[in-house]
Formats: sequence, C-alpha cells, structure tokens
Amino acid sequence: MEVMQVLHMNNGEGETSYAKNSNIQRKIISATNSILKEAILNIMCNINNKNVLESIGVADLGCSSGPNTLMVVSEIIDIIDETSRKCGISFPELRISLNDLPGNDFNDIFRSLPSFFHKVKEEKGAENCYVVGVPGSFYGRLFPQKSMHFVHSSSSLHWLSQVPLGLGTNNAMSSLNKGKLYISHTSPSDVINAYVSQFQNDFSTFLRSRSPEIVPGGRMLLSLMGRSSIDPTIEDGCYYQWDLLANALSNLVSKGQVEEEKIDSFNAPYYAPCPEEVKIAVENEGSFMIDRIETFEIEWDARVSSNSSDDKILLSRGQQVAKTIRAVVESMVENHFGNEIMDDLFSVYGDLVDDYIYKKKVVYVNLVVSLKCKE
Amino acid sequence: MEVMQVLHMNNGEGETSYAKNSNIQRKIISATNSILKEAILNIMCNINNKNVLESIGVADLGCSSGPNTLMVVSEIIDIIDETSRKCGISFPELRISLNDLPGNDFNDIFRSLPSFFHKVKEEKGAENCYVVGVPGSFYGRLFPQKSMHFVHSSSSLHWLSQVPLGLGTNNAMSSLNKGKLYISHTSPSDVINAYVSQFQNDFSTFLRSRSPEIVPGGRMLLSLMGRSSIDPTIEDGCYYQWDLLANALSNLVSKGQVEEEKIDSFNAPYYAPCPEEVKIAVENEGSFMIDRIETFEIEWDARVSSNSSDDKILLSRGQQVAKTIRAVVESMVENHFGNEIMDDLFSVYGDLVDDYIYKKKVVYVNLVVSLKCKE
Repeated sequence: MEVMQVLHMNNGEGETSYAKNSNIQRKIISATNSILKEAILNIMCNINNKNVLESIGVADLGCSSGPNTLMVVSEIIDIIDETSRKCGISFPELRISLNDLPGNDFNDIFRSLPSFFHKVKEEKGAENCYVVGVPGSFYGRLFPQKSMHFVHSSSSLHWLSQVPLGLGTNNAMSSLNKGKLYISHTSPSDVINAYVSQFQNDFSTFLRSRSPEIVPGGRMLLSLMGRSSIDPTIEDGCYYQWDLLANALSNLVSKGQVEEEKIDSFNAPYYAPCPEEVKIAVENEGSFMIDRIETFEIEWDARVSSNSSDDKILLSRGQQVAKTIRAVVESMVENHFGNEIMDDLFSVYGDLVDDYIYKKKVVYVNLVVSLKCKE
Repeated sequence: MEVMQVLHMNNGEGETSYAKNSNIQRKIISATNSILKEAILNIMCNINNKNVLESIGVADLGCSSGPNTLMVVSEIIDIIDETSRKCGISFPELRISLNDLPGNDFNDIFRSLPSFFHKVKEEKGAENCYVVGVPGSFYGRLFPQKSMHFVHSSSSLHWLSQVPLGLGTNNAMSSLNKGKLYISHTSPSDVINAYVSQFQNDFSTFLRSRSPEIVPGGRMLLSLMGRSSIDPTIEDGCYYQWDLLANALSNLVSKGQVEEEKIDSFNAPYYAPCPEEVKIAVENEGSFMIDRIETFEIEWDARVSSNSSDDKILLSRGQQVAKTIRAVVESMVENHFGNEIMDDLFSVYGDLVDDYIYKKKVVYVNLVVSLKCKE
C-alpha cells in the first residue's frame, strides 16, 4: 500500500464524509488553542527582524477538508489580528499554506475560501492574506527555504509514511501480527520494534524536512494521537480502536465476507507515540528545542461523532464512534479489503464499540508538542 | 451571474471534459513557446541580484486542469534548466504557483503532480521545485509582495470579471443585444461601449493587481483571444463562435426548448481585444512596458477538437469544434439556460459550425503580449 496515494479523509459532504464526522479532531484543535496562542505571540514578539515580520508564513500540515480546515486558519488569523492590535502594528502580510496529501479534497477547501475571506476582510480588515494549497507528504520538503514562521499540524502525524518496513503485504513477517491491524497486547517484539523504528525514522525525516523551511526562532505546534505509557502494549487509549476493528473484521471472516489472511496482511501505517519517543527524535535531529510537551485525553463518545444533529438521536454511541473512525480510516481499509464490505464492517464495529464503552470509559490520548527552531 | 462562482473549464476526464478537449489551447501554448523562452532567459540574465535569482517565483494564471496545465510547467522547468546549465549555475529554487478560479479542478492537477515531479527530479535533478495551487480571480491580488519573477497566462484573459456593467440579467439594457450573446454586427453602440469599457477596467485592474507582486525587471507573457481589426464588429475571427451559439439557441427556441428572452438576457463575460486596446490599458496603468505584442491565427478545426483519437473518426469537423467550445463555455451557458438542453444545444451548434466552415476558412485570432515590470 502506497500511503501517499491511498490515505485521505473521506471526501465530499455526505453522511460518511470527514466534513460531517470530524468533531473529535475539532475538539483536539480547540484543546490546543491556548498553546497555539502562546506560540504565535512568541513569534511575533521575539523575531525582531522587522522585514521578516512584515510578512508571516504559516502552514497547516494535514489540513484535510471540511470545517476544521478553516477553523485552524480562522484561529490563526484571530490571534495575529489580536497581537497586531496590542503591538500597535497593522495586520502583516500573511502567507497561509494548507498542506495535505494529493488525494485530499482541496477543491472543497478552495470553494469555501472566497466567502471565508470576504468575512475575514470585513471583520479584521486583513487585506493581505494569501492562501495556497500545497499537495504532498510532510515526510519530505514542502516549502521554500526559510519561508515559514509557524507550522501547525493536528491529528496527522500519527500517520506513518508507510507500513513499517517488514510488515507490508506479501512479506514473510506479515503474518507475525496475526489477527491484528496495529500493535496489540499479543504483538511479538518484532512487530513492536518495526513500528517503533518506523516512527523514529519518519519523525526524524519530518523534522529534517521542516528545519530548512522555518526561519530561526520560528515555531511548530504539533498534536497527534499518542499514549501516556512508555510500553506501547499497555492499554491506555492508543490501540483498542484498531483491536476492535480487527474484531469486526474477524466477525466478517466468520460470515465468509473477509478472508482471514487479509487481516493478517494488513498493518496500519499508524503510530501513537509517548512523549519520551518524541523527545528522543527531536534531540537526535537537533534543529528544534521542545518548549512544551504534554498529553491530554478526549472521550471517545463525548458528543463527538457527527456534525449533523439528526444522527445523534438515531444512532447509538458506538455507531457514532464508528462514523468518526470510518471517515478517517475508510480510504485505507477499503483499499485493502474492498469497498463492498464497508457498510457491514462499520456497522459491526459500531456494535462492538457499544459493548466496549458500556464496560469501560475509553479515551483518545493526545500528545501535543510545541517546538522552537534553534537560532 | 457571478463569473467567479460560475466559470470553470469542464472538470474531470469524461468525453465533454476540458482535459479531453483542449488541443486548441495546447496549440496556442506551443505557438508562444519561443516568446516564453525569450522572456525567461531575459529574467535570468538581467536580474543581477544574486539573492533573488537563487529563488525564482513563477505563476500560471488561469492554469485550468488537464494536460495543458503541466505542459506549461514542464516547458518553464525545461527553459530554466537549459538556461541554468548555460550559465553554469545549479538549478535554482523554483516556486510555481498555479492559479485559477475556485471552481477549477485543482484535485485533478494535484493528483498528477507526484508522478510528474518524480520525472522532473529524475530527468533534470530539479530538487527544489515547489508547486502550490492558488484559488482566486486574477482581477485582484493573488500573491505576496514582490514574490514573482515571471507571470504567464494563456487563453484566460479574454474572460472578463463580470458581464459588462449594464448588460446583466434583469436589466433595462439587457434586451439591447437582442438574439446575441456577445458583440455582433447588429450590436448597438451602447453594447459595444459597455464591452470595451469593461475590458479596459478589467485589464487595468489585472495590471494593477500584478504590479506589486512582480519584482522590478520581472516579466509577464499573456496570450488571449483577440482580433486584428480595431472595429470589434468586423468579422475577423473574434465573434462568430458566439453568433453561431446564439443561432443554435434560437433553433432550440423554435423547438420550444429555450425561451427567447433567455437569449436576450445572456451576455458573455468575454472580450477579444485588438493590440491597440491592450497598449492603451498598459500605458494608462503605467507599471509595465510592452516588449512585444503580436497576433497570430489558429484554424478552428485544424485537428484540434479532441485528445481522444476515436472521436476524430466518428465526429464531423463541426462536432469536433463544438466539443472544444463546450468544454470551455458549458459551465456558464448551463448556469443560465439549464443543464437539460446542453446535449441538444451543442449538437445543433456542431451542425451550424459544419455549415459555416464549409463556406469559409475560419480562424481564432490570438493576441500575445510580452511585458516587463518597470525597474
């Protein structure tokens, strides 16, 4: 599976779209708002080169499409507007780059920009905002030399650049993680090591790619799925979403809808790191300093699944969670298992989630890290 | 009709798509290739500020989607590569901005970029190419201050920002241009003046918007539909495509498929200027010097209509021309006359074109202008 070609949030605005099922990610963005503010204030106060501050480069990596994309842009504009007023300077030229993989629905974002910017200009007098779409993987260069002051990424960096080396389809090791889609409590150490080392490689590549793009003193704010515990097999909010999806697939195996080997050969290009792993990658790469790193929890089903109010009445909590997960993972799961089982799969998944959350309070653990580019 | 929201080349890759029916525009791009080369060479040789030349900003305005989009990018990269080798410098950082209205199919462009750039990097060793999509009208600011060295636009600037003032739908003047969609030999002077002055306003706005974006000494190469004669009502390649479309619509009036008033109230947001009109606008605006301005002709049906070879055998010359025109004007015509008549309309149109080109050799007159930003 070529992650770059396969992975994208569900396009469009239909019932299974990401646009309609991205409240969890919205909550995560909101939860990091104060750190976002702190980072931008810090840039605007501390970069003393006047020429640089006349034009600010900002990027959102893994911007997706739907309401969250413009919510981030809107928050950044608000913070810059507020800070400019405080400092008595006029709103600077603002270059906003929205990045995601080429399969992302950029058309959807672009069509909503004119009315969005009309509003921004009316409300903030921000005449100098330039928004561009930048298709490409953030595990590689995206922007010109020293063009960015602030790089933001939310709910994206837990996606690896590829299935961990050695765990791909048609590989001797592929059946090592039998019946599972990601690290689980039954995973042998080879599987765990493959994931850990893929994350270290990818995260280093990410930092190395950003480092020449960001001005000295510039900042990054990254939030991604993570875990609190150092041991990736301890059940603390990082893997049971995959375990339950594996169980749902097994259920379809028993109905003859899925071949068992198909499950064995699927390994998600995903990793939820703990803070220590991020720290190690940052220190090893060497271009950035960690200003702040923390984890926070968001409940799976805390009125999170859908932006359309009708659903909340008709669907069980589990089915709501299933829609949230489907909007994110469907492109990949469909690529491997085929389109025809998707409805059944996520219906069974919803039932399993219902059983699970009846027994336990389950949360997503989110890791947020604020970084400064060394001067 | 809000041109910005309505106008786009036909999306996708189907039989009526612009991607499959844009050979005319491809020919126009090819025809200006030597002037393109001249302009870029001139920039690379004459801008002596070394820092600036380490990073070159290039924009294609009205980039559309389909094969032509990447053809322009590819030609620009080839020229920069060739010039760099001649000058013994390494390939500079190249920032390419692809602009079109927000309704353009940017997803289509973005999805073809990874394989395109893989090839470019392999062949030219051009590691430092950054491509972004910029949605918005070129009758307004698009890019940051002094960020561009070369701005290109082909087959786009004949589209006005709006239907000429006074000729819009529901307007007292709207029936002035009875039975016509654009300037014709029957058009009264009020209609002609409305078109002429809309073009002057729009072209000035275009120049005024580009001027702060382009570095001193930077260049623009613009090609658009035009005419040789000063008199816009003289039949010389500029308006009979609209006259024939009006006739096709009249034909549908007689069949009860279209209301006559609908034709009277449609006026195309289009203008094909003569070189003198462009010169006047450039002189009045004052930021640019004309380096070269010329017209050239391209035959309507010179194996131009379709990129798919099957059609050429099955379709008449007129039907082939009809497909070319449909791919360009359908979004607007459909918005006014409704989707249900489109197949019939362009079928009748094709027949009329067949009759017409049987009697006359018909050509598109293209106007090409190479401009330099004053230093």
